[in-house]
Amino acid sequence: MTRRTDQLKLGLFLRATGHHLAAWRDVGAQADAGVRIEHYIGLAQQAEAAGFDTLFLADSVSVRGIDSSTFDRVIAPSLTFEPLTLLATLAAVTSRIGLIATASTSYSEPYNLARQFASLDHISGGRVGWNLVTSSDPQAADNFGGAGQAAHADRYQRAREFHTVVDKLWDSWEDDALVLDRANGIFIDRNKRHFTDHHGEHFAVRGPLNVLRSPQGKPVLVQAGASEDGRALAAATAEAIFAAHQNLADAQAFYQDIKGRAQALGRNPEYIKVLPGVSIFTAATSAQAHAKHQRLQDLVHPEVGLSLLSSLLGGVDLSGLPLDGPLPADVPATNASKSRQQLILQLAEEGLSLRELYLRLAGARGHWTLVGSPTEVVDQLEAWFQGRGADGFNILPPTYPEGLDDFIQLILPELRRRGLVGTGYVGKTLREHLGLPYPQHPAARQRQLRASA
Amino acid sequence: MTRRTDQLKLGLFLRATGHHLAAWRDVGAQADAGVRIEHYIGLAQQAEAAGFDTLFLADSVSVRGIDSSTFDRVIAPSLTFEPLTLLATLAAVTSRIGLIATASTSYSEPYNLARQFASLDHISGGRVGWNLVTSSDPQAADNFGGAGQAAHADRYQRAREFHTVVDKLWDSWEDDALVLDRANGIFIDRNKRHFTDHHGEHFAVRGPLNVLRSPQGKPVLVQAGASEDGRALAAATAEAIFAAHQNLADAQAFYQDIKGRAQALGRNPEYIKVLPGVSIFTAATSAQAHAKHQRLQDLVHPEVGLSLLSSLLGGVDLSGLPLDGPLPADVPATNASKSRQQLILQLAEEGLSLRELYLRLAGARGHWTLVGSPTEVVDQLEAWFQGRGADGFNILPPTYPEGLDDFIQLILPELRRRGLVGTGYVGKTLREHLGLPYPQHPAARQRQLRASA
Repeated sequence: MTRRTDQLKLGLFLRATGHHLAAWRDVGAQADAGVRIEHYIGLAQQAEAAGFDTLFLADSVSVRGIDSSTFDRVIAPSLTFEPLTLLATLAAVTSRIGLIATASTSYSEPYNLARQFASLDHISGGRVGWNLVTSSDPQAADNFGGAGQAAHADRYQRAREFHTVVDKLWDSWEDDALVLDRANGIFIDRNKRHFTDHHGEHFAVRGPLNVLRSPQGKPVLVQAGASEDGRALAAATAEAIFAAHQNLADAQAFYQDIKGRAQALGRNPEYIKVLPGVSIFTAATSAQAHAKHQRLQDLVHPEVGLSLLSSLLGGVDLSGLPLDGPLPADVPATNASKSRQQLILQLAEEGLSLRELYLRLAGARGHWTLVGSPTEVVDQLEAWFQGRGADGFNILPPTYPEGLDDFIQLILPELRRRGLVGTGYVGKTLREHLGLPYPQHPAARQRQLRASA
Repeated sequence: MTRRTDQLKLGLFLRATGHHLAAWRDVGAQADAGVRIEHYIGLAQQAEAAGFDTLFLADSVSVRGIDSSTFDRVIAPSLTFEPLTLLATLAAVTSRIGLIATASTSYSEPYNLARQFASLDHISGGRVGWNLVTSSDPQAADNFGGAGQAAHADRYQRAREFHTVVDKLWDSWEDDALVLDRANGIFIDRNKRHFTDHHGEHFAVRGPLNVLRSPQGKPVLVQAGASEDGRALAAATAEAIFAAHQNLADAQAFYQDIKGRAQALGRNPEYIKVLPGVSIFTAATSAQAHAKHQRLQDLVHPEVGLSLLSSLLGGVDLSGLPLDGPLPADVPATNASKSRQQLILQLAEEGLSLRELYLRLAGARGHWTLVGSPTEVVDQLEAWFQGRGADGFNILPPTYPEGLDDFIQLILPELRRRGLVGTGYVGKTLREHLGLPYPQHPAARQRQLRASA
């Protein structure tokens, strides 16, 4: 069946040796895959051949956990390529798959970022998305002036203004600005230049951008924030959302909430795709899948488990606490990821010990983890998709290459058999793959409105 | 003859349709080549096949001349890809050629830039260089907060501190920091982590960088500054210098000055390669070469010529002046490129009219322009190389593809016949191509010194 835009969307979240906390220690892993460009090129080409709509790269502007006494155990995924340079390389070795990179609004300039993403959209022929985030880790601030971490709300105010500027910079030139009149020496249509002229609280940017409007009009805007501030920004601006939910009810509530907010702001809710993350352990039988999962869980060093828990809680010190005892009751509110902290507190209330907590999160840092046969796994994915908890999924293979091989060989055929996913690609650009509209240039729209008035 | 490090170095300066002011209007040019990734990929692969040591990309964080009334005529080279994303793409489609990108220290953060260049050095297998510049165009400041252009000396103070921070960030991890002990779960050697801990006038950066030490230890540092401030910084830090001279005497004076300054600072002058830019019009005969040159000169629109002159002088308004009259005597000192302004004032003193001035500069914005048969051209190149005015050249083809084809088909064979250039590549990294040493990690050097003491 040929791919349709109303089918389930599939993203592949790239990450060194995989998403499981102990992935690099696994028998099949190349421990230093995170710094091997051939590793990423191979994954990107494999994902494209399999028909993934998009690749996704996370980011951080610091080494997470660098001050922890166990940094030598937990640092594996932090030391890898910078996402925008990596994305440009992957663009050169693929031709269809979408490419989404994370970049923070907290420590860069809108002009620089708008430019690199516009350039990537040109280079890739219209396959790029920007996952807009704010930086929540306290170490990041120390790498950028040391003025201290901005409060959560301030970070989002800056992010919103940052986005406004970038969006306007991307409209510096209309689609058909190039004239290329050699005989008279006129290169561009002077009436299709638009200054940005932004004067805001955080930024003053005149423009125009020194990159032409890109093949997608502008890169696809992606977000992952799930807090109140994060949802408000996403509803106003995002075109795709990477969510993190543990069960269908939560996923449905989020899905409904974000689409409702968008609609209330006058947007078409169909044009925000909600893609929860999911980490899948699968094998021919359920028992084999669980054995595979257990093989990884057994490799989680307790110090690494506690470190993950501490980090997801926003830096709470858990060292020395008994692993089979409970989470302390007095965890302070965090300035980092509010939604991730909330998830852990919920699990703790269910009575999980510290060890059980970190093992529950070890699959993919708090993302949904599914363990089972292909039928069992796809039953769940289908329920989320048909139940309007997801427009698709961001797949977080617990290990590379095995976790991706398993998904492609076992899960994808079952998804296709049920008609949830087709073959090939919907179109040429990431927007087309995701069923998102082309953003018309505001000035062109104005002209059109005037003409039809 | 196999390539040797004591031979002439060859760089290729990429630039949309070419370096001549009217290149995009030429009959053989693809006018919109600057936004066609296939164009750059083709040039990079052609240059690698021909044995160029390195590719070079310039940069600007604004649209030059955007406020001029003729921006629609002069804008062609300004609207192109951002260099670091372009470089990453070119790294993926080449395997031997060095890749140098320009990036300004004026409007970015050392952590972000150190990270992207380190990432590029990994991605390319050790083939990357950073051309460190300061931003001198007044429009750039308007895109970054609008606080106005910093004074020339201040720009260089910031640049120097910026470099110090980047250089230290590149030493965050020692070469052999990875342990990869799966059995015990130890990923990295905790004793081979080094914080940056910089607290300076412009920057406070704790580090460490979240990229491992790169294949070249650190990317090759390139500079182009020729003013007093620029020379002082280059003598202290640069490993290659892109110079701009019109005659051998000036080139020799600069060569001797920069190597002398480096030696006075305790550096080995052999480890700063001086590479003047040169734009070459050539053909089988001298007459044909001159006809080719004239074909391009005839395409220079007077407004475009004056605009170039005005911009190289630092923004002086020349509109309305008679083309066959002289440059006004009262050109004010510039805060932009001091060396380029000086060059033009010298030429004006020789009695050149405005038209003659801009035509003299039209070949490649003030770089040396050579017009002649292969023998005539190579005689000149050889004189500069043997006369210690150059360790090699940065080639600025007046047009693409013709200018590059001509160089490869006519000039390169003559250079090889005379033994000035060999075949193949000296090594695998850009450092090896240029004959530059591997920068040992300071901590490793300390350990070695202690051991031998």
